[in-house]
Amino acid sequence: MAIRIFVTGGTFDKEYNEIEGSLYFKDTHLPEMLALGRCKVSVEILTLMMVDSLEMSEADRDLIVEQCKNTKEERIIITHGTDTMEVTARALGQLIRDKTIVLTGAMIPYKFGSSDGLFNLGSALAFVQALPAGVYIVMNGRYFHWNNVRKNRKTGEFEEMRRED
Amino acid sequence: MAIRIFVTGGTFDKEYNEIEGSLYFKDTHLPEMLALGRCKVSVEILTLMMVDSLEMSEADRDLIVEQCKNTKEERIIITHGTDTMEVTARALGQLIRDKTIVLTGAMIPYKFGSSDGLFNLGSALAFVQALPAGVYIVMNGRYFHWNNVRKNRKTGEFEEMRRED
Amino acid sequence: MAIRIFVTGGTFDKEYNEIEGSLYFKDTHLPEMLALGRCKVSVEILTLMMVDSLEMSEADRDLIVEQCKNTKEERIIITHGTDTMEVTARALGQLIRDKTIVLTGAMIPYKFGSSDGLFNLGSALAFVQALPAGVYIVMNGRYFHWNNVRKNRKTGEFEEMRRED
Amino acid sequence: MAIRIFVTGGTFDKEYNEIEGSLYFKDTHLPEMLALGRCKVSVEILTLMMVDSLEMSEADRDLIVEQCKNTKEERIIITHGTDTMEVTARALGQLIRDKTIVLTGAMIPYKFGSSDGLFNLGSALAFVQALPAGVYIVMNGRYFHWNNVRKNRKTGEFEEMRRED
Repeated sequence: MAIRIFVTGGTFDKEYNEIEGSLYFKDTHLPEMLALGRCKVSVEILTLMMVDSLEMSEADRDLIVEQCKNTKEERIIITHGTDTMEVTARALGQLIRDKTIVLTGAMIPYKFGSSDGLFNLGSALAFVQALPAGVYIVMNGRYFHWNNVRKNRKTGEFEEMRRED
Repeated sequence: MAIRIFVTGGTFDKEYNEIEGSLYFKDTHLPEMLALGRCKVSVEILTLMMVDSLEMSEADRDLIVEQCKNTKEERIIITHGTDTMEVTARALGQLIRDKTIVLTGAMIPYKFGSSDGLFNLGSALAFVQALPAGVYIVMNGRYFHWNNVRKNRKTGEFEEMRRED
Repeated sequence: MAIRIFVTGGTFDKEYNEIEGSLYFKDTHLPEMLALGRCKVSVEILTLMMVDSLEMSEADRDLIVEQCKNTKEERIIITHGTDTMEVTARALGQLIRDKTIVLTGAMIPYKFGSSDGLFNLGSALAFVQALPAGVYIVMNGRYFHWNNVRKNRKTGEFEEMRRED
Repeated sequence: MAIRIFVTGGTFDKEYNEIEGSLYFKDTHLPEMLALGRCKVSVEILTLMMVDSLEMSEADRDLIVEQCKNTKEERIIITHGTDTMEVTARALGQLIRDKTIVLTGAMIPYKFGSSDGLFNLGSALAFVQALPAGVYIVMNGRYFHWNNVRKNRKTGEFEEMRRED
């Protein structure tokens, strides 16, 4: 069961530019992270864009939806900035119902030592294998349905919009 | 849905004794790892033992089985040395059928910087939430049924004993 | 021989704000870094300010000079942003001649895992003990006299303004 | 002023064998550590041996003395296990008086994340440039003369055998 990973940027892949003293994107760290996790799941990685999710455009989201539709894999992980992750999840959830799609990200860049990225990647890879078709956000060890999740701007954590009973 | 975590030792929790220049166990790093992963899943952690799994006795395994039976949680993670993880999985699998139990571990100690532990913990927490009742080993981003897994001693990776078709 | 350490901020002490996704200052990491280095030199640490050195004012520099003059220790380390480290070194070098003062910093924040900060701190502590009275910049394993040093903006490295023969 | 670095092993360069679960030597991490420190001092690195200093023989020490005598550089760093560092320092101190030789090491392996190695290497590089001819041990941010130092086996720290007044 091969898994498709689409990279879109976000905190996951931010780096520190030591000349400018600022944060920027270079290449994705996904292959390095999978190697560190000794991951033996068959994955195909494709970088679609490298953007801060606050700067993601409608065209960017259309591209993500299109790629998810067209790729032959039925299980897909999307690495994504957390600020608008719920927006992309909704765009996907309204249009794609026959694949398992997991969006994940990080609060701390992977290159900054004490990142949550490796934990989230491990969770995302597991959930994408075990959950039924649907679009989910995976953060903080939990999974959320695309139509019942928001990021709490104060705590930085994801939560249900309403409790499901 | 609270998750029970039983700690038994293994490479996960090994530390470096700088006076002796040797490896040893002190306390578990599970709470620190869950904090790093910003984990918001409700978990209860209990340390059952702190041993290298090559030194795990029959009595140790009996204790693990007993604890899994008696704990009220129906989803359980066991951190365990990789060398005899499959033995403990079999002991559990033959006796417990109504809970989801995931054994996981690490090839590199968490304290040694470039560990696979955080990735495995993320995977284990996700699989234990999403898989049906049964006993599983979760390593390398994958899950294995207790009755069809062995550690490859040369590569250090887990693999199926026979391919399931 | 006690050593005085004055903290002024700079990349050394920058942290990542995971809610804002930006860099900021909180507390100095000097005590943590000295503990990691198992440093047994007697030091007194005082935070004078926490600023990016591009935003350091004349009044800030006057304060640094004043503090160096007035402290009873004759050997002083100043942690400082690298962008204007040479300016502060000149302000000190023109006015203080009877103490050994070492300015040091980092290109990568200490909290970002692969920082040069611990190496620079080790160098600074050694040079401040072994060099005669004077004002120096210590970076890249080297020491430079206050009146013959500049930061190369392209490489991020410090170099002599003229070769000393 | 080029500096010679002789590598002899010790905790500095120990690695974790994930198949065996034990500590071992592979290659020295000195070049990687110097790169991390953005070191711009001209150095020549030569690995003489890769041993735990408890297993260092008389022949090993003779080789170290010989190499220090014969190398053309007048400033030399030796990375060395801490357990018998003082023995090698004495062997060198009794025979070589016209070069500045610094022995240094680490209590925690460099590869284990929270090592004192980078701090010690920064100190050693600074002291070897700034101290007069003589043989020294550099640990814990301090330097010790070869004929007045011992490792405290309980604390793991180096200390003077008698206070120098």
